Amino acid sequence: MARRPGVPTVADVAALAGVSAGTVSKAMNGRGQLRSETRERVLAAAKELGFQPNALARGLLEGRTYTVGVLTTESFGRFTIPIMLGVEDALGAGEISTLLCDGRDDPLREQHYVRTLLSRRVDGIVVTGRRRDPRHPIGVLPIPVVYVFAVSESPDDLSITYDDEQGGALAINHLLRTGRTRIAHVTGPQRHLSACLREVGARQALAGSRGTFAGGGALWGEWSEAWGREAGHILLRSGDPFDAVFCGSDQIARGVADTLRETGHRVPEDVALVGFDNWDVMAEACRPPLTTIDPNLPELGRFAAGRLLRAIETGAVEPGRILLPCDLVIRQSTGAAVARA
Amino acid sequence: MARRPGVPTVADVAALAGVSAGTVSKAMNGRGQLRSETRERVLAAAKELGFQPNALARGLLEGRTYTVGVLTTESFGRFTIPIMLGVEDALGAGEISTLLCDGRDDPLREQHYVRTLLSRRVDGIVVTGRRRDPRHPIGVLPIPVVYVFAVSESPDDLSITYDDEQGGALAINHLLRTGRTRIAHVTGPQRHLSACLREVGARQALAGSRGTFAGGGALWGEWSEAWGREAGHILLRSGDPFDAVFCGSDQIARGVADTLRETGHRVPEDVALVGFDNWDVMAEACRPPLTTIDPNLPELGRFAAGRLLRAIETGAVEPGRILLPCDLVIRQSTGAAVARA
Repeated sequence: MARRPGVPTVADVAALAGVSAGTVSKAMNGRGQLRSETRERVLAAAKELGFQPNALARGLLEGRTYTVGVLTTESFGRFTIPIMLGVEDALGAGEISTLLCDGRDDPLREQHYVRTLLSRRVDGIVVTGRRRDPRHPIGVLPIPVVYVFAVSESPDDLSITYDDEQGGALAINHLLRTGRTRIAHVTGPQRHLSACLREVGARQALAGSRGTFAGGGALWGEWSEAWGREAGHILLRSGDPFDAVFCGSDQIARGVADTLRETGHRVPEDVALVGFDNWDVMAEACRPPLTTIDPNLPELGRFAAGRLLRAIETGAVEPGRILLPCDLVIRQSTGAAVARA
Repeated sequence: MARRPGVPTVADVAALAGVSAGTVSKAMNGRGQLRSETRERVLAAAKELGFQPNALARGLLEGRTYTVGVLTTESFGRFTIPIMLGVEDALGAGEISTLLCDGRDDPLREQHYVRTLLSRRVDGIVVTGRRRDPRHPIGVLPIPVVYVFAVSESPDDLSITYDDEQGGALAINHLLRTGRTRIAHVTGPQRHLSACLREVGARQALAGSRGTFAGGGALWGEWSEAWGREAGHILLRSGDPFDAVFCGSDQIARGVADTLRETGHRVPEDVALVGFDNWDVMAEACRPPLTTIDPNLPELGRFAAGRLLRAIETGAVEPGRILLPCDLVIRQSTGAAVARA
């Protein structure tokens, strides 16, 4: 197929500037010996024609393409999008482009994408996914790979995610500081690593404090508002008093808030509420707006991109598992408790 | 910079197969005269080494790169993500990769990305944005450009979006069919084109029917649950009876549903409710689950990608503005009304 008419080429620039193609190349690259007036004439011609130096050709010469693949195994969604934007932010500043691949939970499709990315000579790959649970590695590749959010099962890979345990402890310590001592925990399925780790963090923060888990332990369920509403009723029916609920997600917290309000319990006066995710739509529409744990997903993406760039420069990934800390975002659902404490 | 060690090259394959680099190239491309046993030996060596033919080099030869840029001016979010996935779905089937660019509402950043995409010799560009309102064109480029969701102000461009008017009419006709006649309309800001077009569609569907706008016309506000809750109280205080509310977004509808429930009005028995967006999180967590208008965003992305591919083949974009129809998704918020009618 012929080059599309209309895209200016080196030959067009050379013709307009009245020089050879080799001279255009030298002028654009800032290499070789050229008189400054010749260089300026070439640059003026390139500007007039809207000529863009061919990044592909440069890639072939340099052995790198300034392109990175972002591969998600399970569609880009609420968790992967902020990570992807963080990756893109960090790479864009370094003039590196991002090739997007959506594996859609299909291992064959994923392997197809890995081959595509290799054939396009990407300098490295960022792998992410929908869940925090460890995933099988995408394979031993001749280019650096960094896993973010979803961690690789292999200790030879570099995986970067946030610290669920620390996040769980952060929620409990905030509630303890604001004077709460009987803290219920309503969370997602026990088969999900993130739910388990948050519960461990919460339990360890309670141990040695004057607080306890109301009801004796976590209520495991689903990541949904409907489960939050149901769990609210379970807690109230149990008769075991509680002055706070730490919820494993903002959606769950919103459901708990609805049940509390509709049964005449005030948040935060009677019961303080903390969520997890800092999903703005949920946390801000919650009544009252929700104090929650922010896993800093864009920061996770930027950090992963930084490690990938370093690995591309050095030619090797430092394996390991890096956990970045979560932040506490205080809104009204624990606000009044501050005054009470 | 030298080629990264570990990435197998044509020379590696040639050495293993005991042939020249030119023979490897012929074997991989399926071109030239080669004995079948030679071709098989090369392919076996390539497989053993994990060699991937260099897509960059192929791109330089063919004058196209099988790469398309997806440029959003205002961050990838709830509306642009499904569109982008649709684009990626349609292009991926054609072995075309997607370069992701996030302009972040910054015209300078956007122009930087346009130059980057041109220097990477993408075959075409898909432009999208956060809002339905017309946007300035990204410029006259030597490659095809298709606008999707956000439409271009220029009649020389091809813009593809969904039909807000038809969506508004679809909501009203569903309510009329289920026996509702006094229909309130609560929607977003009047300065947003999408809010205006939905209202026009709703008004035209009511004209000539036995239904009317309760309260005399639309309540304009914000795209938020809080506005939906407030508007619910405004409608109830007005004293003007209504048996249905068509809301300009699912978030608004959810707010209206909360106010109705908390003031003792049953949905759908007393008041039927229709939203707009089919945003699953909102529509399914609404009590009761929300009947809504689905703008089919992934379909929009697939359609735009199809038009872009056609323009890449023919070398020209057919300008125009294409509106794709919305769908009605029926859930419980209008369900009981079906029996009543």
